[in-house]
Amino acid sequence: MPAELKNDRFLRALRRQPTDTTPVWIMRQAGRYLPEYRATREKAGSFMALAQNPELACEVTLQPLERFELDAAILFSDILTIPDAMGLGLTFAAGEGPKFERPLRSAADIQRLAVPDMDGELRYVMDAVRLIRRELDGRVPLIGFSGSPWTLACYMVEGQGSRDFARVKAMAWNDPGTMHALLDVLARSVARYLSAQAEAGAQALMVFDTWGGLLAPGMFHDFSLRYLAQVTDLLKADTHARELPLVLFSKGANSHLEALAGTGCDGLGLDWTISLAEARHRVGERVALQGNLDPSALFASPDIIQREVDAAITAFGPHPGHVFNLGHGVTPGVDPEHVKVLIDAVHAAGRRIREPA
Amino acid sequence: MPAELKNDRFLRALRRQPTDTTPVWIMRQAGRYLPEYRATREKAGSFMALAQNPELACEVTLQPLERFELDAAILFSDILTIPDAMGLGLTFAAGEGPKFERPLRSAADIQRLAVPDMDGELRYVMDAVRLIRRELDGRVPLIGFSGSPWTLACYMVEGQGSRDFARVKAMAWNDPGTMHALLDVLARSVARYLSAQAEAGAQALMVFDTWGGLLAPGMFHDFSLRYLAQVTDLLKADTHARELPLVLFSKGANSHLEALAGTGCDGLGLDWTISLAEARHRVGERVALQGNLDPSALFASPDIIQREVDAAITAFGPHPGHVFNLGHGVTPGVDPEHVKVLIDAVHAAGRRIREPA
Repeated sequence: MPAELKNDRFLRALRRQPTDTTPVWIMRQAGRYLPEYRATREKAGSFMALAQNPELACEVTLQPLERFELDAAILFSDILTIPDAMGLGLTFAAGEGPKFERPLRSAADIQRLAVPDMDGELRYVMDAVRLIRRELDGRVPLIGFSGSPWTLACYMVEGQGSRDFARVKAMAWNDPGTMHALLDVLARSVARYLSAQAEAGAQALMVFDTWGGLLAPGMFHDFSLRYLAQVTDLLKADTHARELPLVLFSKGANSHLEALAGTGCDGLGLDWTISLAEARHRVGERVALQGNLDPSALFASPDIIQREVDAAITAFGPHPGHVFNLGHGVTPGVDPEHVKVLIDAVHAAGRRIREPA
Repeated sequence: MPAELKNDRFLRALRRQPTDTTPVWIMRQAGRYLPEYRATREKAGSFMALAQNPELACEVTLQPLERFELDAAILFSDILTIPDAMGLGLTFAAGEGPKFERPLRSAADIQRLAVPDMDGELRYVMDAVRLIRRELDGRVPLIGFSGSPWTLACYMVEGQGSRDFARVKAMAWNDPGTMHALLDVLARSVARYLSAQAEAGAQALMVFDTWGGLLAPGMFHDFSLRYLAQVTDLLKADTHARELPLVLFSKGANSHLEALAGTGCDGLGLDWTISLAEARHRVGERVALQGNLDPSALFASPDIIQREVDAAITAFGPHPGHVFNLGHGVTPGVDPEHVKVLIDAVHAAGRRIREPA
């Protein structure tokens, strides 16, 4: 029997219910800016060894909660676990981004793909979710997550990050049938994966569409949005996931907020290139919003961090439905004390804006 | 006495006057995708040796005009010539982006900066403009260009490209006075530089704000837009430049098109993440629009390139004020034959859409 949730601000905000203050968590809150993370990462030997060891993944997931008054925990993992489980061989070279040993090079490579086994190759993720949930003991809710179908496809076809993603886009232009086959198996895998995380104990779900914003509008609709909608539909019909708030974050895709809100998700992540006032005006009656301070603000002095937090919370206004976050993951090199300043400033400003005038 | 211009489609379109078809040129049309460019680059020894040699810069500027029915030539140069002339020491390591040997590290570094001498350190640029103009012999107009104040500041403070530009943003947060001093001397330098290019023979001017789109809305207004407006004001009051159409291109800043149009420039460059129909609807009565096909479309097959060109030209409609271009520079590795397909498709579709129904 799981412990009762002591702090439900985050879940209430995602359901656009009133809260005593604005809840806050930070993308990559368990990460390289924390010395204790670097120590555990060192002990594990490699990023993948850390992510695939449920005890260590649990340890780093909980680290930032010891330091800061965070309102949610997020599973420590990577957005690329699904393609790794599909056999592509995920590695992280020192100082570089992710790389696949066996990227997709042909239609035949894609036809061979199948939804991975959640009790097999991906069991380590579910074990981590179960363990973290137990160790959290109801302090705050746990977020499960996945990369989006399009973003997974980008890495799977390119084999790694890219400046222009010319190879994956060329496949979309020249062989759309094969690209749709790839995105369909990925959408079914992502939904199955998030459902399994829900079953294992995740209390909210998030999909990171890191590269959706690189697409022209027509391509965004056909290759990114369509499969975010498929994932949403599958989850909203799923026994384990349907009650969990679902957040979609399509970075750089602010011109598509209305379409993203139209998928039926519960919240949208926002990068920092849009004001919260504008985003709320456009879609705030339909979805909660999560974001969106420029991560570089954490390099500013504490008084400026406080000023910018105040400005963001004022821009959103005293309405329900805001989860404070950065507009992208916290940058390695940030002083953890600055993160504390940010978290505390959010709660203070969130209380202030809810006070009767 | 300069030769009379034989093809003025490009200049007419930037003034939103009717043309027989849609004019087209391509960012980085003189570049690595062309074998003849790679041969000249090899001969020069380094990128900077090529850019600083007026004869070779002229040679590569004209190369794409021998292959394709382009409606404009653009000076072969780099966006970072101004900081190089200010003494920062621009280099290009093989396979990497630009790097400064002496990046700005303090307020004192910034106070020492002065507008460079257009007949001194930057004379090679004006010599190239004069020579290209003579060799063009009126075939098509010549575009002069510069990086924007904000984009120059990004490279000058970071010393090179960056994923997050945390250093330059930290300066903007923590020491805005120093950042404004830097942007002011850069705005005056950019305007002086473009005026000198106009005097030397450039027939249109363009400012590339490559990193403006990385800024949150408030920062964009304070640190990017404000100095694009200063450059525009200075040029519109300048003897040599005021008659030349001026195009501003702030990549990734589509949410700011109205504000950019409000600077008083003549045209806006567009990246590929907005439809031409939407952009024209929002600002097409005030400025010409230049763009905006996804550069990756050049990796598609010829029939798909033609289909996408048709779609873009149809989206803009039969109105004056469109210069076709990619939404970013042409990608190295593109087949030059595909560029020819694109150029010819633009002219064909541009004629078709102007035919009486």
